Amino acid sequence: MSAPAPLAISLGDPAGIGPELIAEAWQRRDSSQLPAFFAVGPAQLLREAAAARGLDIEVRSIASPAEAAETFTSALPVLGSENCAFRPGKPDDQGASLALASLTRATNFAIDGTASGIVTGPVAKTQLARIGFTQPGQTEFVADACGVAREDAVMMLAGPSLRTVPLTIHCALAEVPGQLSAELIVRRARIVAQALACDFALERARLAICGLNPHAGEDGRFGDEETRIIIPAIEMLRSEGLDVTGPHPADALFAPHERARYDAALCMYHDQALIPIKALDFDQGVNVTLGLPIVRTSPDHGTAFSIAGKNQADPGAMIAAIRMAGECAARRARL
Amino acid sequence: MSAPAPLAISLGDPAGIGPELIAEAWQRRDSSQLPAFFAVGPAQLLREAAAARGLDIEVRSIASPAEAAETFTSALPVLGSENCAFRPGKPDDQGASLALASLTRATNFAIDGTASGIVTGPVAKTQLARIGFTQPGQTEFVADACGVAREDAVMMLAGPSLRTVPLTIHCALAEVPGQLSAELIVRRARIVAQALACDFALERARLAICGLNPHAGEDGRFGDEETRIIIPAIEMLRSEGLDVTGPHPADALFAPHERARYDAALCMYHDQALIPIKALDFDQGVNVTLGLPIVRTSPDHGTAFSIAGKNQADPGAMIAAIRMAGECAARRARL
Repeated sequence: MSAPAPLAISLGDPAGIGPELIAEAWQRRDSSQLPAFFAVGPAQLLREAAAARGLDIEVRSIASPAEAAETFTSALPVLGSENCAFRPGKPDDQGASLALASLTRATNFAIDGTASGIVTGPVAKTQLARIGFTQPGQTEFVADACGVAREDAVMMLAGPSLRTVPLTIHCALAEVPGQLSAELIVRRARIVAQALACDFALERARLAICGLNPHAGEDGRFGDEETRIIIPAIEMLRSEGLDVTGPHPADALFAPHERARYDAALCMYHDQALIPIKALDFDQGVNVTLGLPIVRTSPDHGTAFSIAGKNQADPGAMIAAIRMAGECAARRARL
Repeated sequence: MSAPAPLAISLGDPAGIGPELIAEAWQRRDSSQLPAFFAVGPAQLLREAAAARGLDIEVRSIASPAEAAETFTSALPVLGSENCAFRPGKPDDQGASLALASLTRATNFAIDGTASGIVTGPVAKTQLARIGFTQPGQTEFVADACGVAREDAVMMLAGPSLRTVPLTIHCALAEVPGQLSAELIVRRARIVAQALACDFALERARLAICGLNPHAGEDGRFGDEETRIIIPAIEMLRSEGLDVTGPHPADALFAPHERARYDAALCMYHDQALIPIKALDFDQGVNVTLGLPIVRTSPDHGTAFSIAGKNQADPGAMIAAIRMAGECAARRARL
């Protein structure tokens, strides 16, 4: 049996903290038990990012993903072409183009199987929009590339304390009630249950569904979305044999004794899912895309331009994202 | 100088965990450095609640709050009249009447100054409604008794990790945007700043104001409440000399490094304030009412009928509520 394919890591915006965190993750590969990976981007830029962080590491260009595993033991393997000036904290169009090229190439390696999955570095959406990037974010880009409907590429935030899935994401809070439907909840919950079985070895995952309103509406006293939308969705999912509970009052669901009772919480809106994960697992939060034919994770933080190149960024989330992608890829390889 | 007046503690629903936690708090009075307090309720019921918890303590009836301090060193002082059967987990109308009588009497002791403040045990609103209690909760009851407009009695949740203030509370999420106004934010923020100075010795409290929408609206991409309501409120408060920042993306505001930057977070809706405090400080969360002429705190948990009388309830929040009430009362006494 041959060794598993390596993970491909896209740079993210080269003016952000992505490049230095990739270098730091390689430096900590043994203590963090990381699988073999390679960065998709210019070797010179990664050398400068490593040096700015005070890392004395070798960055070595490889010609194909097949060379990554052997190189990985002694140097950070990098697969890239055109160079780009290292200007931490100073994003520009050239950097945005490089970020997009890196994301595109890394994704294609995963689709053709020469990489076992991708970890995407943080990008700046406003920068990407300036060079004609039309997707709302990297998740939609990867879904499009895989031929998966965007609404079936499900974002999950995962940390040591809990996993949460926001069912609506980038919309005004006032629009959330109108975007919810029993169909949406059922469709996403099925994808989550299947992905937790396939990628996380949770054969019959326990899904906790949040209410929308305070105290999950207190039997209809505050809002009717629980009775009209969420409870019918839960009944449908149970009738299919899924292990689903709720609607739970969202304020209590993330308390320590409650967290032990489910494998993932399905949340009705962005902050309901993101507040608890960032409060509890800030420096170790991983954004995983469920429902794709490829494995894709990302550290759950942004480009952090203001601290890029200053050796201040915490590598915990990048390391956790690489480790999680490796674990998911290994489980898929055994299926 | 005479000793400060003791705190009065209302029983809460006698079928809930309130009575046993009062007994447990007295048992731990020295290790928890608690100020003198007395319970308002029947001595026999508190004896049975203590016994069910396995506590070997003396419960002693007193005739007036003035006897509490001396009694406190050797017995749990209790001031009450009619008895009530101890039936943990089995709420009924008699218990609800007792809870209301205890709350009323404790509040009056604080208003007339024979108690230095009140700590209210947890009640069941549905039980109270059955016996004609018309207020939405204990906070509004106490505000009414003090002659303070209900909208100026401001709920703050306080734990070891953070303090949060929900600006809207028990309404459907869909109604939140319509309930927000710059006037509401300004009025509540003033009360919070004044109370933090008076009761918490935070002379110029740093107030962080949350956005309503994901990423605080991303410059108007998701909803306009930040630009239309929240930013004008912040500007008004700053013009008055208050130390106010925001609107902050709510998902990031409760991460560890952010929490160090403010003394209280003002949140736009119930779960935005309650999710982080319960995730981080579940067993030590205190509900404080700001803006009242009397000191009032409460443990931030419910009656927990299902575990009442079983020695399972964590006393952390009750102990924290008593300690905080004592600290606030001592600061007021020095003013």
